[in-house]
Amino acid sequence: MIIVLKKDATEQEIEHVVERIKALGLAVHISKGKERTIIGAIGDEAKLAEAPLSAIPGVENVMPILKPYKLVSREFKKETTVLDIGGVKIGGEKVQVIAGPCSVETRELMLDCAEKVKKSGATMLRGGAFKPRTSPYTFQGLGEDGLKLMAEAKKATGLPLVSELMDPRDIDLLCKYVDIIQIGARNMQNFRLLLEAGKAGKPVLLKRGLANTIAELLMSAEYVASQGNSNIIFCERGIRTFETALRNTLDFSAVPVLKEETHLPVFIDPSHAAGKWNFVSALSKAAVAIGADGLLIEVHSDPENALCDGAQSLKPKKFDVLMNELRAIAKAIGRTL
Amino acid sequence: MIIVLKKDATEQEIEHVVERIKALGLAVHISKGKERTIIGAIGDEAKLAEAPLSAIPGVENVMPILKPYKLVSREFKKETTVLDIGGVKIGGEKVQVIAGPCSVETRELMLDCAEKVKKSGATMLRGGAFKPRTSPYTFQGLGEDGLKLMAEAKKATGLPLVSELMDPRDIDLLCKYVDIIQIGARNMQNFRLLLEAGKAGKPVLLKRGLANTIAELLMSAEYVASQGNSNIIFCERGIRTFETALRNTLDFSAVPVLKEETHLPVFIDPSHAAGKWNFVSALSKAAVAIGADGLLIEVHSDPENALCDGAQSLKPKKFDVLMNELRAIAKAIGRTL
Amino acid sequence: MIIVLKKDATEQEIEHVVERIKALGLAVHISKGKERTIIGAIGDEAKLAEAPLSAIPGVENVMPILKPYKLVSREFKKETTVLDIGGVKIGGEKVQVIAGPCSVETRELMLDCAEKVKKSGATMLRGGAFKPRTSPYTFQGLGEDGLKLMAEAKKATGLPLVSELMDPRDIDLLCKYVDIIQIGARNMQNFRLLLEAGKAGKPVLLKRGLANTIAELLMSAEYVASQGNSNIIFCERGIRTFETALRNTLDFSAVPVLKEETHLPVFIDPSHAAGKWNFVSALSKAAVAIGADGLLIEVHSDPENALCDGAQSLKPKKFDVLMNELRAIAKAIGRTL
Amino acid sequence: MIIVLKKDATEQEIEHVVERIKALGLAVHISKGKERTIIGAIGDEAKLAEAPLSAIPGVENVMPILKPYKLVSREFKKETTVLDIGGVKIGGEKVQVIAGPCSVETRELMLDCAEKVKKSGATMLRGGAFKPRTSPYTFQGLGEDGLKLMAEAKKATGLPLVSELMDPRDIDLLCKYVDIIQIGARNMQNFRLLLEAGKAGKPVLLKRGLANTIAELLMSAEYVASQGNSNIIFCERGIRTFETALRNTLDFSAVPVLKEETHLPVFIDPSHAAGKWNFVSALSKAAVAIGADGLLIEVHSDPENALCDGAQSLKPKKFDVLMNELRAIAKAIGRTL
Repeated sequence: MIIVLKKDATEQEIEHVVERIKALGLAVHISKGKERTIIGAIGDEAKLAEAPLSAIPGVENVMPILKPYKLVSREFKKETTVLDIGGVKIGGEKVQVIAGPCSVETRELMLDCAEKVKKSGATMLRGGAFKPRTSPYTFQGLGEDGLKLMAEAKKATGLPLVSELMDPRDIDLLCKYVDIIQIGARNMQNFRLLLEAGKAGKPVLLKRGLANTIAELLMSAEYVASQGNSNIIFCERGIRTFETALRNTLDFSAVPVLKEETHLPVFIDPSHAAGKWNFVSALSKAAVAIGADGLLIEVHSDPENALCDGAQSLKPKKFDVLMNELRAIAKAIGRTL
Repeated sequence: MIIVLKKDATEQEIEHVVERIKALGLAVHISKGKERTIIGAIGDEAKLAEAPLSAIPGVENVMPILKPYKLVSREFKKETTVLDIGGVKIGGEKVQVIAGPCSVETRELMLDCAEKVKKSGATMLRGGAFKPRTSPYTFQGLGEDGLKLMAEAKKATGLPLVSELMDPRDIDLLCKYVDIIQIGARNMQNFRLLLEAGKAGKPVLLKRGLANTIAELLMSAEYVASQGNSNIIFCERGIRTFETALRNTLDFSAVPVLKEETHLPVFIDPSHAAGKWNFVSALSKAAVAIGADGLLIEVHSDPENALCDGAQSLKPKKFDVLMNELRAIAKAIGRTL
Repeated sequence: MIIVLKKDATEQEIEHVVERIKALGLAVHISKGKERTIIGAIGDEAKLAEAPLSAIPGVENVMPILKPYKLVSREFKKETTVLDIGGVKIGGEKVQVIAGPCSVETRELMLDCAEKVKKSGATMLRGGAFKPRTSPYTFQGLGEDGLKLMAEAKKATGLPLVSELMDPRDIDLLCKYVDIIQIGARNMQNFRLLLEAGKAGKPVLLKRGLANTIAELLMSAEYVASQGNSNIIFCERGIRTFETALRNTLDFSAVPVLKEETHLPVFIDPSHAAGKWNFVSALSKAAVAIGADGLLIEVHSDPENALCDGAQSLKPKKFDVLMNELRAIAKAIGRTL
Repeated sequence: MIIVLKKDATEQEIEHVVERIKALGLAVHISKGKERTIIGAIGDEAKLAEAPLSAIPGVENVMPILKPYKLVSREFKKETTVLDIGGVKIGGEKVQVIAGPCSVETRELMLDCAEKVKKSGATMLRGGAFKPRTSPYTFQGLGEDGLKLMAEAKKATGLPLVSELMDPRDIDLLCKYVDIIQIGARNMQNFRLLLEAGKAGKPVLLKRGLANTIAELLMSAEYVASQGNSNIIFCERGIRTFETALRNTLDFSAVPVLKEETHLPVFIDPSHAAGKWNFVSALSKAAVAIGADGLLIEVHSDPENALCDGAQSLKPKKFDVLMNELRAIAKAIGRTL
């Protein structure tokens, strides 16, 4: 850690900072320039992270040198991690597509959708049983009944299941049915939920929060990994900015940035970012081209009657066309889909 | 709800939209202008909120007319709500100050802090027993032991207690000790937590999320209120913007906007917004001047050794000076403090 | 335009709004619902845009129906516009790449760079003669000397030139040399500059401002078009958000959104958005995949010694590799490059 | 400047960075820790600011230590600057209020407004002769005719004038009439305009851009100051965030932050930030309480018929009430108004 002192910091103030650092077991290196005195703290930076050095009089700025995440970092593990979810390899050469309705609604829709997306090439099935809704007066999901319908769809198609965990009390129930636990954007910093997901041992698909930096996303993954579970898939789904043309601004750059920072796979969810089905295709193409390891796409046979997010759902036919287009782009960058 | 059709929408498309609206039990009013056909849907707008009208071909834009929150809105209840927390009136003529350390650490610090803030005029005591921390490797709070120390401080000073709920499983434990349940910024859209807080019946201090609009904040309060508990205090604590001079950008305007939209009291937390103690005074003064019903200020006798957020904590002496300054401003706007 | 009245608006207030609208020559349609009275203003909405209806007591909300831009909108001109810049077709089947150094520095560098980027397939040459720099103490560009060097490079390679206009007083000078006038992000709402660029008649490459919405970008183009010059190329180059991993957040979604709203071509500048050369390739690939009509890429033979933005410049060899990768993606989506 | 190397940086890479720094005339200090090698560059940091060190292989991060602004910084000049504009002291004990219509429209309105705001205690007069409007089809200001009307109002009331410069070609014209040159938010990084304003020698009121950091605002002021003119007044007028309740988010914190960084006065413009007159009072009170040296408030005798921004203009009577309220707050913090 580098501690920059104010121009007019007194000797006493400098001495006090030095003592504080030493008291935490780190070595100190002082460099007195013409304009500023700079203190380098050498040793376990994590100990300093907790110490409020910037509160000390005379201190102008505190700059960490090391990254606060470890287990999920590429420094910790150089080789790219490839997860295996019931035979589906995530993070490898093949771009995987998770498709399905926003929320599980009826048996017919779920089974129909599962079969159709499988036929088009999707390799995993998504569906919401517990839905985080902005309004308490709207459809909140079918709960376990929804999970049961998903299990039936899995039985029929063989597609592994992804569904969202909203409450630590639901962890056992969810794990009974799904193959990947999804942590939604609004819960990215619900630390208790992250700990439960980590303990459960199932792979976790961790969505980036609407206002969370990539660094914070990595720290939330570290919460999961700290419980001994490093089977984590990152998912960029749009961040909140001043632009309102689409629902959110999909930060595609997060893919190459995460690829550099972490050894774990990165997905993109174009459906939630767009909020409108007619933009999903364009966003999906860019997602594959920029190097995403997979996509999370909402597909619904009857979007007009969907109980949740119908406006952003593709009909199975449009999804099929899109999959063919994506295959061509995957091939162009040396991958398959 | 107003549905604007595309310029080249066909008669068939228009007809289809009309049928969808009627099917949901609303009446329809069509206005064909030179440039656009506009459909007004008259009746229970909530039913339409769920219907993905914007997914229908020919539809350009869907504009809601009514607000999606009810119980917390000033339309629903015109008179300003004044809460009574153990004799402390919140939302009335007196500006209330909740003070205390970021996290409960030791018995000595807690008691010392409680007595000092009381002496300076604070009317409630804050302290974190469960701490949402960005890193899994940092201090996470003392849990029930922390709550017990707070209870002791309450006994000594009579100050009602405010502490944060992070997990629905902790609700009974927390309610045993505290007078106000705090929902932190990161959990503003943790809907299960909101429901639990609503069911528990205790007053809820609801912090605005870093990237949440005021409208979303009102909807989260509606979750609490939907459980029969309208004893809600809003708290603005800074939003995330591109500016990095302070930790967050305190959106003071939220106070007058909320005052217009809701009948419930509004607080400001200058400590978390600033992230640096030397800016807390300036922000606090503006908070009182703009009409906040209360403040949430972090005070710590030994900030350099604080286990959490020491950099933003005021020492008791500085807090005392600030309280006197705030009193003068409160008086200038016709309130007390 | 739709005017929503407050729930408790009086008859007198409603009447007053109606009169105001009629006075501006528009017809009025009143719809009294159970919850709200809504007034539709039928006629030339532009006249109302100027009238501060929302200032009138009793008015809750004013919602425009029509878009404020005309000449640049796809409603105004359905067919996609293809510009022809000295034989280079912009907006057609071929994706065009504008490459070159951030700023013109020396004759050798400029000529070397021009030849190399041409060889790799770039079809236009960029270079800054007037540089908008954050600090007054840094290199501000060579001015006309720089333009002369660019002209020489054009003579040697045949590549049309793109360079930035910073000051209305430079318009004639710039037009003497360049084929496309660039309006930089910081000047997107420098309306006088837009008018000059419009009057000059040369094609204009209009970069989106860091904090400007797509709707505002279209309005700025309308300024240019209002002077009789509709040869406009939009350029997305990243917006400012809370994320700091790269310099800006490239809003790729702007491409499909603009394609729907306007008949004009859309480019992407990955270099300025990234700020780091090692992210330029990934962003460029996504740009082609999402449908951009062209790219603006910084190439410099000696980035370490560049006087401006060296960190984001590709070396010619890396640029050459990238062009081949982009060609494959262009092909995959049915275009050439 | 601190240069942090990647964990796996080679000796050769480190050596190369060292050579680059030495070549620029700075001394080097190397610190090899367990995790990272860190290089401190000691000397004139400005020289390094231009060098793209982060483009060099092996470099992970480049952290500047010194601030890039000088003349406007409090380090450069410790004592607070008090400007004297025709007897009006700006930056001193008295909070100054600049009031007037958004745009100059008619002689009657201008004179009437000037007299009324003066009577209420405003000490300077504002008015727009050149208006930066989002749409080319709206009222763009009266130009010199507007300035003449302002001059007449000055003659009648003695109030010094503030008006906006939009085009470097208007500088002489504007200086003939006004006492303070306003640089609008959209032109905060119109560097040519800043240079002209600096050269003209008149005091400059510099508004913060909607998406500009405080650090960038200081750099823009440095452009003005670099021309020998340090009579600069900063003005916060709201930044662009995701929140849409009001037009912009007024970043009140900018006042104490600027007060620490610069010796120059800081104003707040609540009218443009709010966009709605009924929020101007609340924002103004907070502005005075947080320590702003002045306010810029729009007042219009007939807002419903204003040609520009009528919705945010106060009527003279409301302005008068507000001035009394502000006086009480100024007194409470030990100032006058």
